[in-house]
Amino acid sequence: MARYNRPPFEPALEETPNGTVIRARGASDDKGQLMTFIEACRAFKAVNGTLPCGITILLEGEEESGSPSLIPFLKDNANELRADYALVCDTGMWDAETPAITTMLRGMVAEDFTIHAASRDLHSGMYGGPAINPNRVMAKLLAGLHDDEGRITLEGFYDGVAPVSNAIKDQWESLNFKVENFLGDVDLSHPAGEQAFTALEQIWARPSCDINGVWGGYTGAGFKTVLPAEASAKVSFRLVGAQDPEAIQNTFRAYLEDGLPPDCTISYRAKDGAGATNMPIDAPYFTAARQALSDEWPKEAVFIGCGGSIPIVGHFQEYLGMNSMLIGFGLEDDQIHSPNEKYSLTSFQKGARSWARVLHALATS
Amino acid sequence: MARYNRPPFEPALEETPNGTVIRARGASDDKGQLMTFIEACRAFKAVNGTLPCGITILLEGEEESGSPSLIPFLKDNANELRADYALVCDTGMWDAETPAITTMLRGMVAEDFTIHAASRDLHSGMYGGPAINPNRVMAKLLAGLHDDEGRITLEGFYDGVAPVSNAIKDQWESLNFKVENFLGDVDLSHPAGEQAFTALEQIWARPSCDINGVWGGYTGAGFKTVLPAEASAKVSFRLVGAQDPEAIQNTFRAYLEDGLPPDCTISYRAKDGAGATNMPIDAPYFTAARQALSDEWPKEAVFIGCGGSIPIVGHFQEYLGMNSMLIGFGLEDDQIHSPNEKYSLTSFQKGARSWARVLHALATS
Repeated sequence: MARYNRPPFEPALEETPNGTVIRARGASDDKGQLMTFIEACRAFKAVNGTLPCGITILLEGEEESGSPSLIPFLKDNANELRADYALVCDTGMWDAETPAITTMLRGMVAEDFTIHAASRDLHSGMYGGPAINPNRVMAKLLAGLHDDEGRITLEGFYDGVAPVSNAIKDQWESLNFKVENFLGDVDLSHPAGEQAFTALEQIWARPSCDINGVWGGYTGAGFKTVLPAEASAKVSFRLVGAQDPEAIQNTFRAYLEDGLPPDCTISYRAKDGAGATNMPIDAPYFTAARQALSDEWPKEAVFIGCGGSIPIVGHFQEYLGMNSMLIGFGLEDDQIHSPNEKYSLTSFQKGARSWARVLHALATS
Repeated sequence: MARYNRPPFEPALEETPNGTVIRARGASDDKGQLMTFIEACRAFKAVNGTLPCGITILLEGEEESGSPSLIPFLKDNANELRADYALVCDTGMWDAETPAITTMLRGMVAEDFTIHAASRDLHSGMYGGPAINPNRVMAKLLAGLHDDEGRITLEGFYDGVAPVSNAIKDQWESLNFKVENFLGDVDLSHPAGEQAFTALEQIWARPSCDINGVWGGYTGAGFKTVLPAEASAKVSFRLVGAQDPEAIQNTFRAYLEDGLPPDCTISYRAKDGAGATNMPIDAPYFTAARQALSDEWPKEAVFIGCGGSIPIVGHFQEYLGMNSMLIGFGLEDDQIHSPNEKYSLTSFQKGARSWARVLHALATS
């Protein structure tokens, strides 16, 4: 049915049990979100004949394909683009009634590496015992990255990780986050990270070490009694606070190399890292925007975190020296990146009104 | 050049720095070896008009393709095939001057399994921290299989592993095995198995635990920050002495299941095991054969081990209740399974003479 296959530029309104939605590929991520801002600007022009303050709009349409043009464009047009701060509309509400400003994004550093042992694959009948097996070496190195309490063992890894302030902690506690729902949605029940922190803290405010891929030896159907010549892994670290991606990459490499037994070597495929983003939430424009959002929606706006990264926020910081404020109206059930993506009509309408309130507040605060 | 591509049934003599060789695909493994026995029988017939004792010859030509016909054939013809013992010509000399009887073959049991966690692959930005990562679980389980001394940690794993007798140990020590050559050939230098045993003991007389394959998550080019829903491994154990494959499979599964954290399950793809083969080397026919071989070659014949398996030996035992004696004249540089396989003319000629001596000795002892 066409209903589940709306093309990207032919949105249709559709009634659902949760209200009217705009159905189209990319309706939420990120066309609908961008339009809330543009509609707010249009309203100002229509009513007042002018915008409430100086505004430059940048519509970035390449994020899902790695934004190849973005950095050159930022560099070439830095003077025109640089502002007091950027407003980015690419995030979500806490829930359908509670607007949110995302104030923390985790950074990331990753390593893709191979452990080499014998000069060729060996037969376990001939060599099983005396020949070092890189799969075994890899397992030991990867297993040593966490202790029994879920803490990451790399020396100095937690340098720069600050505790969450009590004010933020109180806000997060008021969110009524249900770990059993969050994990239950994917058939899990036990938070597996650092046991000293709640699941919400683990995602938003604590770093993680993730083995994204591992492979070595024979992985096809049936069985081969091979001792492989090499084993590989892809490991990434989500970073928070002031953790330094380069220092962590160096520490990780030192850990791997210290743990290599005789006859083994290691090679790396380089991957750039990026630190976490922490917004200046005590700045007046955060206070003003939060109040403006609270005025529009049934519930008070909250400061939330995000376990992932939004690359453009880092680029604005790096190339324009500009902070970002992340406000968005997406909902968890928008099914972003799916063929039947939707954007709630309420998100669209109240989102545009929210931006009008926020722009007014920022211009007058 | 044709020299490196002799077809399997057109052997050619060729001069090499190490003497004349028979060049043909499969010249050593196993056509040349089989022919040494047939030539010995032909000589008896030519000289004496009859064989020295009752002999049934079985030429098995399907070994490299899994011997699909063998077991049915053994079952259907058990009465005709059953003898006091089998003579199998599929093994090697210790070196070009030292004949050998292979008296120990390691057995094997293997497990191919998958650890399951979340109901789908997750994004490490959203879930990195609280969601259990099966790659991490797998690494910990695999890393725990060996202690720092290279011993396998499974409870009761070494039950049935007997120490090597002093008589055999003395023979092995006399072999002048050079671990630096054995490992050096594949660019290794440090025996990685049980530190309390020599490399030769590790291969011939000690069990091993080998991670033949491991895979989980994203393993392609570039990077995906995925937390996979599952991780898999193929692990095999080489067995010696009276180690029981079924007991070890059960112990291994119990180890894996005991180590699974909450929210994880495990599934197995079954694989049959087989115990080690230990020849009755004190039997008179071993003594007689060893003496006969020693009479033919420059150096005294030795009892050696083999780290791998020769499936037919187990089948003879299981379906015919018959022990085997493994005598062969292959050399390490025969390049078996390669296009330019060779069999030394000396192996062929002195091999045939060896069998004549052995058959005579067995018939009269």
